Amino acid sequence: MSGHQPTPPGTPNVTEILADWVIDIQGADIPNEIRYEGLRTFVNWVGCAVGGASHETVDAALKALMPFSGKATSSVLGRAEKMDALHAALLNGITSHVLDYDDTHLKTIIHPAGPVASAILALAETRKISGYDFITALIVGVEVECRIGNSVYPDHYDRGWHITGTAGVFGAAAAAGKLLGLNKQQMRWAFGLAGTQSSGFREQFGTMTKSFHPGRAAQNGLCSALMAQAGFDSSERVIEAPRGFACVMSDKQDWSEIIDGLGDHWEAGLNSYKPFACGIVIHPAIDGCIQLRDELGDRVSEVESLHLDAHPLVLELTGKRDPKTGLEGKFSVFHSAACALLRGDGAPTAFTDEVVRAPEIVALRDAVTATANPDRHSASVRIEAKMRDGTTVTKEVERALGSRDKPLSDEQVTEKFRVQSALVIGEAATDRLLDIAWKSADLDDVAEVARVSSEAVRKKGAAA
Amino acid sequence: MSGHQPTPPGTPNVTEILADWVIDIQGADIPNEIRYEGLRTFVNWVGCAVGGASHETVDAALKALMPFSGKATSSVLGRAEKMDALHAALLNGITSHVLDYDDTHLKTIIHPAGPVASAILALAETRKISGYDFITALIVGVEVECRIGNSVYPDHYDRGWHITGTAGVFGAAAAAGKLLGLNKQQMRWAFGLAGTQSSGFREQFGTMTKSFHPGRAAQNGLCSALMAQAGFDSSERVIEAPRGFACVMSDKQDWSEIIDGLGDHWEAGLNSYKPFACGIVIHPAIDGCIQLRDELGDRVSEVESLHLDAHPLVLELTGKRDPKTGLEGKFSVFHSAACALLRGDGAPTAFTDEVVRAPEIVALRDAVTATANPDRHSASVRIEAKMRDGTTVTKEVERALGSRDKPLSDEQVTEKFRVQSALVIGEAATDRLLDIAWKSADLDDVAEVARVSSEAVRKKGAAA
Repeated sequence: MSGHQPTPPGTPNVTEILADWVIDIQGADIPNEIRYEGLRTFVNWVGCAVGGASHETVDAALKALMPFSGKATSSVLGRAEKMDALHAALLNGITSHVLDYDDTHLKTIIHPAGPVASAILALAETRKISGYDFITALIVGVEVECRIGNSVYPDHYDRGWHITGTAGVFGAAAAAGKLLGLNKQQMRWAFGLAGTQSSGFREQFGTMTKSFHPGRAAQNGLCSALMAQAGFDSSERVIEAPRGFACVMSDKQDWSEIIDGLGDHWEAGLNSYKPFACGIVIHPAIDGCIQLRDELGDRVSEVESLHLDAHPLVLELTGKRDPKTGLEGKFSVFHSAACALLRGDGAPTAFTDEVVRAPEIVALRDAVTATANPDRHSASVRIEAKMRDGTTVTKEVERALGSRDKPLSDEQVTEKFRVQSALVIGEAATDRLLDIAWKSADLDDVAEVARVSSEAVRKKGAAA
Repeated sequence: MSGHQPTPPGTPNVTEILADWVIDIQGADIPNEIRYEGLRTFVNWVGCAVGGASHETVDAALKALMPFSGKATSSVLGRAEKMDALHAALLNGITSHVLDYDDTHLKTIIHPAGPVASAILALAETRKISGYDFITALIVGVEVECRIGNSVYPDHYDRGWHITGTAGVFGAAAAAGKLLGLNKQQMRWAFGLAGTQSSGFREQFGTMTKSFHPGRAAQNGLCSALMAQAGFDSSERVIEAPRGFACVMSDKQDWSEIIDGLGDHWEAGLNSYKPFACGIVIHPAIDGCIQLRDELGDRVSEVESLHLDAHPLVLELTGKRDPKTGLEGKFSVFHSAACALLRGDGAPTAFTDEVVRAPEIVALRDAVTATANPDRHSASVRIEAKMRDGTTVTKEVERALGSRDKPLSDEQVTEKFRVQSALVIGEAATDRLLDIAWKSADLDDVAEVARVSSEAVRKKGAAA
């Protein structure tokens, strides 16, 4: 009913096809290996949400918004606070992304879990949802956002849109709509409401507002599904309309990326998990510098300068020469390489204000140079360390740890979770949370994961 | 601290200049005639908010969102429900726009009051704000959104953005930030948070989601100011950054429209108020058809067909040939002209589902044709009525009622308020509300306006 501008001849009904698929697909239609990747996606997300929960970004958001929260049904993971489901979706989206340590769909640099898992775990605390249905919805939501991202990437991203927010809101709406049991028309409306809120600029990288994007996408996607269920109507063709998402926000529109092979080919199976707490493009440099440190042993102190031969995106996204804060450090390949070489660290502890200002790291950072090499694979780097004696040591990283060709094992996902979560809720609580997170696909009530988090925080509070 | 992409040489610090102005300006710096236009803007907005309050769009939004509302501090004007201030801002933004009957900044087709007044009246119910300060903040907010709109119009709008939402969120943030007493850095952050949520597609015209846009802009702008106050940081150059608002969402960026003559030239003084409950571009046709009806008297039944020679935007925006619902009727110049000629009506009563389907109106609607004439002023139209006897009657409208050259008088604003409000809250309550609305600039506590609205609804409920 919506618009009077016709789509060009031959344009498929992308929104309708996608909405139908979201509603029709059953958990059993999803191959086991994809379901298992969905579980890994969720476990990694829980660890990141807890790991980021004590960040000052989260304190500021809670200070501003707690006075407006409705009935406190839903947990802010890793904290004592509960909020209404919409606000909890926002907060968990912020916490899970604030350390830049979450998951990545490498084709689009979307961080898929933040918008989707934050929306549906908050929802799951308001009604009983099984772990099986939850993982189904999570995978469906991730599939939707990554396919929509593929259809407009890279033009959409190059233009300045933070694609985790802009595409993520569709994924959150899809996953929430699936769990709410929307009919197909309501799902089209939910996409309409979600799409019309698609937003978030890359200009925000390096500020608290970057992690606000997946949070708001989670909240807005959930809100869209709830409103559509209540009969709030919207365009039923928001993705493909001439004045809709893909045409307004991108010069590239490849509909086949959205509708071809739905249910056969799975973007949700391509998710990857960051071993290091910063933008994925710096990972080869950190991986290589840590290897170099291990190989050099005591001689690491004799490194005079570093030169990186890297993919062009490395300098474009993380070329900050003079970071002043921990957050800014995540956008400096120079800091990241220096810290990896001198401390062997790429975890959240490498990106604190204190470490970014540490004199010996600043000194080496200033002696790091980089070349953008368009022929280089984005998961690779060549590092040349010039030693004080004039010799050069070279390290070639073919594929960085955490890339598609070198994914984190379950043990590495667990270890990553353990390190960051223990800093926030302690080791005993982390063990309990890890245990239930890995079992979440089999839970009768997936909200149990959130309850274990809240109990852990309460016990820690009581003990302190 | 935000981005590493430099702005092109010569780009002024638009965000900083605008934020400084918002914080520095005092009520006494605003000329009396602009302050009075601010009062008219507010009175017209209150009438529209009450007038739209019983629409099914509002019922659906409340059904979905009331379960998530926080402490019920703030009124949904014209209804019994109260919600937390953020949700009330959303709901009042929806109600005040849902009938397409609100105010218009004609240069940009922004409807300025919806995002701004909705945000700050909801806020005013949470703390004491004088009518004087409220009108100052309203004018500042309107000025900000219209100037930002000017800087990117028409390219931004032509691309498909619903500019009332995309620019409105800045206005809401400015007005709320002013009343919250933000410092200058916080105001820049508030703009950063607001800008990164700028969204809303014209594809939504004709659906409930159109009025969601000013509502969400109000809510998001208020939220941005609250978060900035709590220390949630953001880009401090969101308007002018290469990956910020104006460059990402428009090919045109005219910074002078934003920063030149601040405090001297007032866009807020150019606001206009719709005499008819639909898109402004149809107003000349409705005005002319009502005049024609008056002139023809009984002969109106002999009109066989109508031809309109109109500005090109009329067909582009309101060319819907076959509207099925009242909302769609607002986007049909054919329906609007037929209804104005046959019933003399351009009020909300002309845009109900029933009237849009009335056989005699449908019959004449199908006999209305229109030509897009690029030489014609947007506030004018020539109407040729072909009579059954073969003769032709012509009506030339030089400037439509409600246009800048033919503004509504205070009495006409009052009458418009009275008609639409009485349908929702009754005549006695409407009189009380009108009385206090016109006095609002002098109130010690501007929230009194909202309280009178709530009392009126309660009394009506008790009487029923």
